[in-house]
Amino acid sequence: MIDKTAILGENVKIGHYVVIEEDVLIGDHVEIGNHVTIKAGTIIADHTTIHDFCLLGKAPTSNKKMARKPVVDLEPLYIGENVTIGSHTCLYQGSVLYQGVLVADMASIREKVCVGEDSIIGKNVMVENNVVIGQHVTIQTGSYVTAHMVIEDEVFIGPCVSSSNDKYMASRTKPLQGPIVKKTARIGNNATLLPSVIVGEKAIIGAGSVVTKDVSANQVVIGNPAKELEK
Amino acid sequence: MIDKTAILGENVKIGHYVVIEEDVLIGDHVEIGNHVTIKAGTIIADHTTIHDFCLLGKAPTSNKKMARKPVVDLEPLYIGENVTIGSHTCLYQGSVLYQGVLVADMASIREKVCVGEDSIIGKNVMVENNVVIGQHVTIQTGSYVTAHMVIEDEVFIGPCVSSSNDKYMASRTKPLQGPIVKKTARIGNNATLLPSVIVGEKAIIGAGSVVTKDVSANQVVIGNPAKELEK
Amino acid sequence: MIDKTAILGENVKIGHYVVIEEDVLIGDHVEIGNHVTIKAGTIIADHTTIHDFCLLGKAPTSNKKMARKPVVDLEPLYIGENVTIGSHTCLYQGSVLYQGVLVADMASIREKVCVGEDSIIGKNVMVENNVVIGQHVTIQTGSYVTAHMVIEDEVFIGPCVSSSNDKYMASRTKPLQGPIVKKTARIGNNATLLPSVIVGEKAIIGAGSVVTKDVSANQVVIGNPAKELEK
Repeated sequence: MIDKTAILGENVKIGHYVVIEEDVLIGDHVEIGNHVTIKAGTIIADHTTIHDFCLLGKAPTSNKKMARKPVVDLEPLYIGENVTIGSHTCLYQGSVLYQGVLVADMASIREKVCVGEDSIIGKNVMVENNVVIGQHVTIQTGSYVTAHMVIEDEVFIGPCVSSSNDKYMASRTKPLQGPIVKKTARIGNNATLLPSVIVGEKAIIGAGSVVTKDVSANQVVIGNPAKELEK
Repeated sequence: MIDKTAILGENVKIGHYVVIEEDVLIGDHVEIGNHVTIKAGTIIADHTTIHDFCLLGKAPTSNKKMARKPVVDLEPLYIGENVTIGSHTCLYQGSVLYQGVLVADMASIREKVCVGEDSIIGKNVMVENNVVIGQHVTIQTGSYVTAHMVIEDEVFIGPCVSSSNDKYMASRTKPLQGPIVKKTARIGNNATLLPSVIVGEKAIIGAGSVVTKDVSANQVVIGNPAKELEK
Repeated sequence: MIDKTAILGENVKIGHYVVIEEDVLIGDHVEIGNHVTIKAGTIIADHTTIHDFCLLGKAPTSNKKMARKPVVDLEPLYIGENVTIGSHTCLYQGSVLYQGVLVADMASIREKVCVGEDSIIGKNVMVENNVVIGQHVTIQTGSYVTAHMVIEDEVFIGPCVSSSNDKYMASRTKPLQGPIVKKTARIGNNATLLPSVIVGEKAIIGAGSVVTKDVSANQVVIGNPAKELEK
């Protein structure tokens, strides 16, 4: 079902049982799998591939209990050139994926997220709202990127890394601040990052560590709580 | 494909490529997205929203190796008023969601689960069978709720929290018992709860903690194994 | 949409909005749910059940940044007899599931994976490429199986267990080696396994442990880093 106001470029391939809503803009040489829904206004640039069972351009939702209501007037979702979007993914309105990004299967990216060139968002990675991810970043399978987190260029985040942004856990009065991970820092699998910690440039966080305070540039930390590795 | 025995209320909106099986009952002002399957007998109350790619009312399955076979004669899935069900979710037969509940994208809820009013089941949260979740509970993205777990009213569970219920790991002879989390307790991200631990009222579990024994009311614990925070 | 070159056995049930591509081979008494895509060449043996929203036989993808390009000439996906594939799953080309396997909802299995008879791949479990999983293995909900990992027969992996294979985190020069888990070993929930560790036969890893070095047969380890349990 392709709405008549949608604009499709040259040589676009579209699978079976696809829904493309009003005012969607699709560039040249785009491939779209089966069972895909593209919500109103979404923009997809040239040479991009969308796999099966994707939902693109979803609007945020909320319930009565949610302290922080989602923003209402969002820009459309913008997906750049040469991007690949895996199967069973869900990408929200108001986010931007620059060229060459790979979003793997079953990942989710909420509103007001920016993903820089050639970065990889791994399988089943959940990226919350208001996140900035630099260029050439790798976030491996199953990691969790909390809202208001910053991940600079060339950072490597291993699998199953967890982050949070609410020191007082649902106190509802303090501002939320996720971790800030500086350029080329590396984080081992299943590490835990507490709210607002800063991980310095080229720092290394060992697998399974619990990072409760800032880590300096070039520092290597391990353990629970994470401490500098003895040499 | 809407079965002719399904009953739809007034002002129901249904997307494209939707399957509604026999004897489904849908209230007034319900919105159903694209690519949704609603299994036989499911009941959806007024003013509820179902997003794209949902599977509602699934029956349990098993294989030869599974020690504990699923129950066969389950009640239909019941989804109350003003509920929101995110995209790519899977909800089983025999569960009840009370009014105002939000189930976020990619979450799963198995059979014999009860979710109280206005509670939030976060993105990619997996809730196993035979779980009781109270009112105004928040379970954040990526947490895992094991079978036979109890979560009382107003509990806050941060992201990526893990729980288990089988002290002997597949011994197959002992009864399963998940953790019991008392009213308004708060659990930090990526914490690990061992089988049958009791987390007392207003207790706080630090991020990344491994809770190996009961935590008293108002106690604050951190570390691996989790111990009372020194003041 | 069933391609005319696909071959279907006797008594095959197919749901609504299903796509079956060229040269797919489906045995007798197979049941296929709604909203399913089966890619070219996939083979499904007798008495197997495929639930809704599955993608079977996906080809690997990559982007410019990925150091290790996926293999191109893969065998088709082979799914054996009496297998059950849960909803919203994604299984790649070049993998083999032996008879009696259960792949639960929202799980993912990449290319060059072998899953032995009657093993269970739990809900939301992500299995990467080049993994060998033995017979009668249980991998519970939300666990992560890294590439180049070996899991022998009758191993029990609890929920939310994490593994990794890249000691130098994206150095791109060393070979990747995941953990090797020997027969009947048991791993508690949310444990972290570092690259290339060997977990011996009948060893037990406590919940929340961080396994930084090899664990001997019959050893019981807990903590961060994991150490032998004092008796």
